[in-house]
Amino acid sequence: MYSPKNTKERIHHRLKISKGHLEKVIKMIENDEYCIDIMHQINAVESGLKETRNLVMENHLKTCVADAIKNGNQDETVKEVMSVFKTKI
Amino acid sequence: MYSPKNTKERIHHRLKISKGHLEKVIKMIENDEYCIDIMHQINAVESGLKETRNLVMENHLKTCVADAIKNGNQDETVKEVMSVFKTKI
Amino acid sequence: MYSPKNTKERIHHRLKISKGHLEKVIKMIENDEYCIDIMHQINAVESGLKETRNLVMENHLKTCVADAIKNGNQDETVKEVMSVFKTKI
Amino acid sequence: MYSPKNTKERIHHRLKISKGHLEKVIKMIENDEYCIDIMHQINAVESGLKETRNLVMENHLKTCVADAIKNGNQDETVKEVMSVFKTKI
Repeated sequence: MYSPKNTKERIHHRLKISKGHLEKVIKMIENDEYCIDIMHQINAVESGLKETRNLVMENHLKTCVADAIKNGNQDETVKEVMSVFKTKI
Repeated sequence: MYSPKNTKERIHHRLKISKGHLEKVIKMIENDEYCIDIMHQINAVESGLKETRNLVMENHLKTCVADAIKNGNQDETVKEVMSVFKTKI
Repeated sequence: MYSPKNTKERIHHRLKISKGHLEKVIKMIENDEYCIDIMHQINAVESGLKETRNLVMENHLKTCVADAIKNGNQDETVKEVMSVFKTKI
Repeated sequence: MYSPKNTKERIHHRLKISKGHLEKVIKMIENDEYCIDIMHQINAVESGLKETRNLVMENHLKTCVADAIKNGNQDETVKEVMSVFKTKI
């Protein structure tokens, strides 16, 4: 369930971009490029993944979490959100 | 608003511990202790702060966010949660 | 320049694994899987990338940084390491 | 051992500022301020600590690590730096 409607497409599109960046990192290793440049490129992939995860989280809060709270399933849904919030630090 | 009741005391207690750890870092600098030990001690303070923030977030979701969603103020409350979620990465 | 010899292969291998995990995330989005599961899978990709970057950094310190320091190019090499250290937080 | 000379004072000064910010967080809890504001303030403390740790790391690389590498103690010093680099993620 996605809101607004094009959220799924945006997430999918960003992940494809991250995949492209990751493929570039793999090529950089194969071509013996400079470590510092490789690490910066890895940071770029991570940074893209974080933005994507934030989009997923925002969508999750607006849809699944909001529904769960309205239906009285608050404890379980909060526990799930916290499981992501904790590991991502 | 805290739930369960002793959450505020737990948060307060942990912050006091973090303050103690931070005071130790300051003493370590004054006493010219080894950089590596100082950095590990700084990591310990950060780690304690993160756990505390997680407690605050969990409490926030269970109380303020749940109330806001039930009262139809979903967009604003999700925006606020995301503002923390984004900066903490 | 890699040390020990198989470091390049280890890094390359891990990146291929991360790529596989990222492709799984993309499939999960396409299949409308649960947001929480998707976010945990994104965390797994990030976690793998971090471990890979640590391997690259360790190798960089042992080879390029050590050489630069022995050759008197300390300031530039420290600046480069810090540029990675700062952005990755 | 600090380089440049005033680095120790700068680190000490920043830690005192972080301590002040942390004391403010404790007061915010005592005064039942809004969770979101408390979490942003905790983020500010963390952010200050990270900058301080970066200063300590930069100094460490320029002094202790450079000396260790020149004296042939490369493996041990790289291992120590990596121990900080790994945990801080």
